[in-house]
Amino acid sequence: MLDKRFFELHGPFTLAELVDGTVATVDDERAQKKISCVGVLDHAGSDDITFFHNVKYIDMLPNLKAGACIIAKEYANRLPADTVPVISDKPYRAFAQISCKFFGERLKSAKIESSASIDPSAKIGKDCYIGQNVVIEENVEIGDGCQIDHGAIIHRGVQIGANSRIDANVTISHAIIGQQALIKSGARIGQKGFGFDIDEQGHLTVPQVGRVVIEDDVEIGANTTVDRGSSLDTTIGQGSRLDNCIHIGHNVKIGRGCVIVSQVGVAGSAQIGNNVVIAGQSAIGGHIKIGDGCQIAARSGVMRDVEAGSKIAGAPAIPIKDWHRETVAIAKLAKTRGYKKA
Amino acid sequence: MLDKRFFELHGPFTLAELVDGTVATVDDERAQKKISCVGVLDHAGSDDITFFHNVKYIDMLPNLKAGACIIAKEYANRLPADTVPVISDKPYRAFAQISCKFFGERLKSAKIESSASIDPSAKIGKDCYIGQNVVIEENVEIGDGCQIDHGAIIHRGVQIGANSRIDANVTISHAIIGQQALIKSGARIGQKGFGFDIDEQGHLTVPQVGRVVIEDDVEIGANTTVDRGSSLDTTIGQGSRLDNCIHIGHNVKIGRGCVIVSQVGVAGSAQIGNNVVIAGQSAIGGHIKIGDGCQIAARSGVMRDVEAGSKIAGAPAIPIKDWHRETVAIAKLAKTRGYKKA
Amino acid sequence: MLDKRFFELHGPFTLAELVDGTVATVDDERAQKKISCVGVLDHAGSDDITFFHNVKYIDMLPNLKAGACIIAKEYANRLPADTVPVISDKPYRAFAQISCKFFGERLKSAKIESSASIDPSAKIGKDCYIGQNVVIEENVEIGDGCQIDHGAIIHRGVQIGANSRIDANVTISHAIIGQQALIKSGARIGQKGFGFDIDEQGHLTVPQVGRVVIEDDVEIGANTTVDRGSSLDTTIGQGSRLDNCIHIGHNVKIGRGCVIVSQVGVAGSAQIGNNVVIAGQSAIGGHIKIGDGCQIAARSGVMRDVEAGSKIAGAPAIPIKDWHRETVAIAKLAKTRGYKKA
Repeated sequence: MLDKRFFELHGPFTLAELVDGTVATVDDERAQKKISCVGVLDHAGSDDITFFHNVKYIDMLPNLKAGACIIAKEYANRLPADTVPVISDKPYRAFAQISCKFFGERLKSAKIESSASIDPSAKIGKDCYIGQNVVIEENVEIGDGCQIDHGAIIHRGVQIGANSRIDANVTISHAIIGQQALIKSGARIGQKGFGFDIDEQGHLTVPQVGRVVIEDDVEIGANTTVDRGSSLDTTIGQGSRLDNCIHIGHNVKIGRGCVIVSQVGVAGSAQIGNNVVIAGQSAIGGHIKIGDGCQIAARSGVMRDVEAGSKIAGAPAIPIKDWHRETVAIAKLAKTRGYKKA
Repeated sequence: MLDKRFFELHGPFTLAELVDGTVATVDDERAQKKISCVGVLDHAGSDDITFFHNVKYIDMLPNLKAGACIIAKEYANRLPADTVPVISDKPYRAFAQISCKFFGERLKSAKIESSASIDPSAKIGKDCYIGQNVVIEENVEIGDGCQIDHGAIIHRGVQIGANSRIDANVTISHAIIGQQALIKSGARIGQKGFGFDIDEQGHLTVPQVGRVVIEDDVEIGANTTVDRGSSLDTTIGQGSRLDNCIHIGHNVKIGRGCVIVSQVGVAGSAQIGNNVVIAGQSAIGGHIKIGDGCQIAARSGVMRDVEAGSKIAGAPAIPIKDWHRETVAIAKLAKTRGYKKA
Repeated sequence: MLDKRFFELHGPFTLAELVDGTVATVDDERAQKKISCVGVLDHAGSDDITFFHNVKYIDMLPNLKAGACIIAKEYANRLPADTVPVISDKPYRAFAQISCKFFGERLKSAKIESSASIDPSAKIGKDCYIGQNVVIEENVEIGDGCQIDHGAIIHRGVQIGANSRIDANVTISHAIIGQQALIKSGARIGQKGFGFDIDEQGHLTVPQVGRVVIEDDVEIGANTTVDRGSSLDTTIGQGSRLDNCIHIGHNVKIGRGCVIVSQVGVAGSAQIGNNVVIAGQSAIGGHIKIGDGCQIAARSGVMRDVEAGSKIAGAPAIPIKDWHRETVAIAKLAKTRGYKKA
């Protein structure tokens, strides 16, 4: 399956080597079996390891061709005899851990391409790759081991922590970015936010003099936009992950470990706690507070503060159980002859 | 109307020349009339040909100034005497065919601009235009007659078929792209998808080792993102057209001839059949199957598999007739005094 | 608070100097107090001026540390003694005016960077900054005092009025742009729209031979896309402001002074009047007319023409009062035991 034009494959590894240091285990008797690659359930062959995680696909289990399958104990007896069960109560995490053994991130070797334009006042760390036509303005500081890919623009004063990766055609201004960041291609970080006084005689811009502060281990998706603060900062907490085509308004605070799925919009000055999950295309209104650990269903429109740990859906967003109930009630209503007469 | 700074106009043509090879016909008596350009209903002048297609505008017909009008037979008698009816039961298709006679796509002449950076291992076909500051990495293969416009980044190993056009500031990696592709400016193809194990102790990335495979004659809109597969490929079938600001998640399969309107989001591993139309801002949930020929209304949220040929709307999406019924029922409910007392 | 790596601060100023020429006033007795910077309510210190505008934060007033606060007369008596009230019935406008005294827009000095590629036929006005790797094609005209930042691509024939600012990695084609425009990074202006005849045997492109015409004082957000017209122009009226990640389809007409918030989509040939506000993630259907002064709530789906001055919400969008009523009615319905038995 693997296209070696694009990916380098390590291994093969024994199952013992693969489970070492992971959240999975394997019977000693079968631990010396050699595995060459990973694969998905219905495509993994006898040299591959796969994983079972989504119960939707349970009927596939007896017919697997995979050499091994990471699986919860309770389902392991459904596997065919030739597929070695690799037991884990977190099969997807184990799969992530094992996959990383096969595939190292293939970063570019340290080099500054000749067409890169770097201001003499900028500080570039050791072992960085700076791509073609990259522009690095005055007083930028880039940590060790960073990869700034072709055509990325790093405006003056921006700081980027060690081992961060800025993909091609990204634009960053007015921002302090932590270590191990991954900013995917076309993301726009730090531009002026949408702040102005509305007046029929002519809108008047309010100078936007805050920054974007992104902590360590944050991922920002392709073509996502993060506006800088108006006077406080726009912040994204450690380990949070943002998907593609998201908009984050000025002054927004996003906590640690959040997961924000594609095309979500977060309006200005919203405050999002830690470990919040916001599914695709949802909107968070301005100045709203969302407590830690909330889960917000896809396409929700959140118009009020939300308590920690809530699960909500709909627009305006309500507890997800209520939303399901309303959905059913509306469907029944539309089918009820009696109501139409009323 | 036409601004010649931007467009080259061929012609004039007789109506006979214009209808030749199209799905339209014209009476022989009037077929020698000369036409200079195309125009919309209420702006076309006596040298222009226009078309009537949207019944919303039927009242305009008696007042047309156009020299000719492509129109279904049943409406032709509403045209004024000076407007020659050009009869077609597919007026918009005929208009497309005729427009193409006036306007050739104005591609750039074959040339490799001096600031383009092309790895020596890359293969560039004949008669290509490679723009300023384009970066083409190692082992890229680009077919004959392609136009890769300024600032586009083509990462290593990517293949692009003949006569494809990659617009300015596009980024492509981990992708195999067919012939006659049109990838509009700012599109992002092949970046790492949003795949990781969620854990409060720290999310863990799953290496994304699939590709993007785009068949022939596909159009991808400006600032649209298409993530590569996690281990299988993300695929887009022949002749499908994607508008701007769309997000396509990892492992998504899109069939042939699909039309996906702006700002749609398709979550990971969704499978979309052939000739599916998805209107603007709709969301397709992860792992969902949508059968051939489905039509999905704007702003739908599709949460379940959909049978071939269905027409659906709403969030959660339901058959469009039911959705209209529910809309009416809710409106009545809110107006019913009796209900409020209950 | 202010990070001087990114922003230059003028001042300090006396309150008398600050209110001069603005919509605010201050008591003569206290008008000589010196102020160094601006700040938000709960972060402004004794040298800062802040503003009170959103009643949500009224309880903060007695505890302000700010040196001065722009505030409506009726609330001024809630301020602590050390905070000088600066009276205005438009506090946010006054704040905008005063902020502009502290912060000039820090434009780059006039210069053409050596890596810029400018066609000999292009006309560049006086005092322009043309950044690294900018590409300006044939017959482009750029007015005096413009800033075209790194990696921006200006395709042939485009006109840009004086004192406009085109940020990094923007792409513009087939467009006439007025004075004092601000086009933020990654915006795509003038690409081919989504116009083709749909047919299962193969979709057929209709040549898109209109332009984009943008009047003076318009702001276009990061990664927003504006397609050119199919034969008429796509137009954006004077002083309108578009946020990030918006899509504007071909032939759309947007009036003067409109405010369009992030992730809105406007389908082809829609006509939007003057001073219309469209909140985030809303969709405007194709060929729809929206009258002057309409206000459209976030996440609305507008499927019919809307009269001037309307306030609407929901999908399909209805008067906002009705929408609130429906929301309440549905919630009650779902809770009503009696209904479930019906």
